[in-house]
Amino acid sequence: MPKLDFRSPRLFVDAPLAAGTGIALDRDQTNYLGNVLRLAAGDTVLMFNGRDGEWQATLAGRKRPDRAEIVSQTRPQDGLPDLHYVFAPLKHARLDYMVQKAIEMGVSALRPVTTRFTQASRVNVERMRANVIEAAEQCGILSLAEVHDPEPLERWLGTRDDQRLMVFCDEDAPIADPMAAFAGADRTKGTDVLIGPEGGFAEEERALLLKQPHVVRLALGPRILRADTAAVAALAVVQTALGDWGKPDAR
Amino acid sequence: MPKLDFRSPRLFVDAPLAAGTGIALDRDQTNYLGNVLRLAAGDTVLMFNGRDGEWQATLAGRKRPDRAEIVSQTRPQDGLPDLHYVFAPLKHARLDYMVQKAIEMGVSALRPVTTRFTQASRVNVERMRANVIEAAEQCGILSLAEVHDPEPLERWLGTRDDQRLMVFCDEDAPIADPMAAFAGADRTKGTDVLIGPEGGFAEEERALLLKQPHVVRLALGPRILRADTAAVAALAVVQTALGDWGKPDAR
Repeated sequence: MPKLDFRSPRLFVDAPLAAGTGIALDRDQTNYLGNVLRLAAGDTVLMFNGRDGEWQATLAGRKRPDRAEIVSQTRPQDGLPDLHYVFAPLKHARLDYMVQKAIEMGVSALRPVTTRFTQASRVNVERMRANVIEAAEQCGILSLAEVHDPEPLERWLGTRDDQRLMVFCDEDAPIADPMAAFAGADRTKGTDVLIGPEGGFAEEERALLLKQPHVVRLALGPRILRADTAAVAALAVVQTALGDWGKPDAR
Repeated sequence: MPKLDFRSPRLFVDAPLAAGTGIALDRDQTNYLGNVLRLAAGDTVLMFNGRDGEWQATLAGRKRPDRAEIVSQTRPQDGLPDLHYVFAPLKHARLDYMVQKAIEMGVSALRPVTTRFTQASRVNVERMRANVIEAAEQCGILSLAEVHDPEPLERWLGTRDDQRLMVFCDEDAPIADPMAAFAGADRTKGTDVLIGPEGGFAEEERALLLKQPHVVRLALGPRILRADTAAVAALAVVQTALGDWGKPDAR
């Protein structure tokens, strides 16, 4: 894992980025850079928009920085593995945390699905998007993951591309070597990693899941994991077995 | 991963546990059971002490539950893998979180080490112990991990058993298949998993680490991970490759 760079803050902007361009900063960005980080005109930041790579920029503005002049590209645009994180939403702060962690682990889409024992009844999709941006800014990720609206598990199962690999984190699976479970798994159509609610799936939900054509049951060890821990653990194992941790070109 | 049981709270107590024994609950436990969970005399809880396994107990007490009568054993005592989590401490809430996550992942000891770029200057060891107990209660872990006092990295390196495997999560390691890195690693003397501060190790610290006899460098993918995410990810990969996730008897 590359080192966190504490010196250059990284900002997501929506505007096109190219050498010589000037970017107007919004009020939140001005406030964050000027009042929280105490940066001023002449200081350097990094910027990305999800399309044009990462750029070095110089702040400008009279009192507080309210513009940035784009200087030069520091990294070309890259992509994310075709890895969707499908999950029963948690409440409030724990959902924020889980979203940030999934982004750090390199997922390209977040799909909340509601199940019979899902604890959170409402999902704030805008807040999920803000957490995606914050995690990407902090962790040097240049592509923003897609955030989907919540939908019932059955509806997602009925409409998903069932040629995708489904990694079903199944608390009733016998403990078995996760690497052996992935032997022969075909990830070329993409991978969905599914983590259920902390109360588990209902029996009819499990039956429906196990009927999917390309399903791998993943047991995450002999101890109980909270859902946010299971997210990071499952994604680490999947990235190691199938994703871009072992093979830098597996995108 | 077994399911979280939301119906029976699990309590750590220090007293010996055996059928027919009565256990006095302390004020915090009485308050938690009576006022937070709204349990009363006659309700059931699970208890463990780290030595005698897990027991079902019936609450007693006039106004609020202040005693528990031990009924029968629900699980025998088990152990934890010989897996030490060695880490540069974080500040406050993020340290609480990291400790809880490491416990969920099944470590048997927590060893804070200070490094040149460690952010937290003080470590509240009592608070770490409280987090160990809380995570064990919530996640059904019957053994409490040891909590060590913080010490400088160099002193730990000078006194550790260097026959133990050291998994060094090295942000400067080239991206490589983590499973290949563990091929041939000897974990029979125990395993230390080391995660540095978010600012990285100093050059002389890295040089010292790479001189250890049984060291495996672990790269955790191409993206930056926060230290708490790296903890769960590294422990998931280590438990899969060497620990008790793949082989239930690897203790």
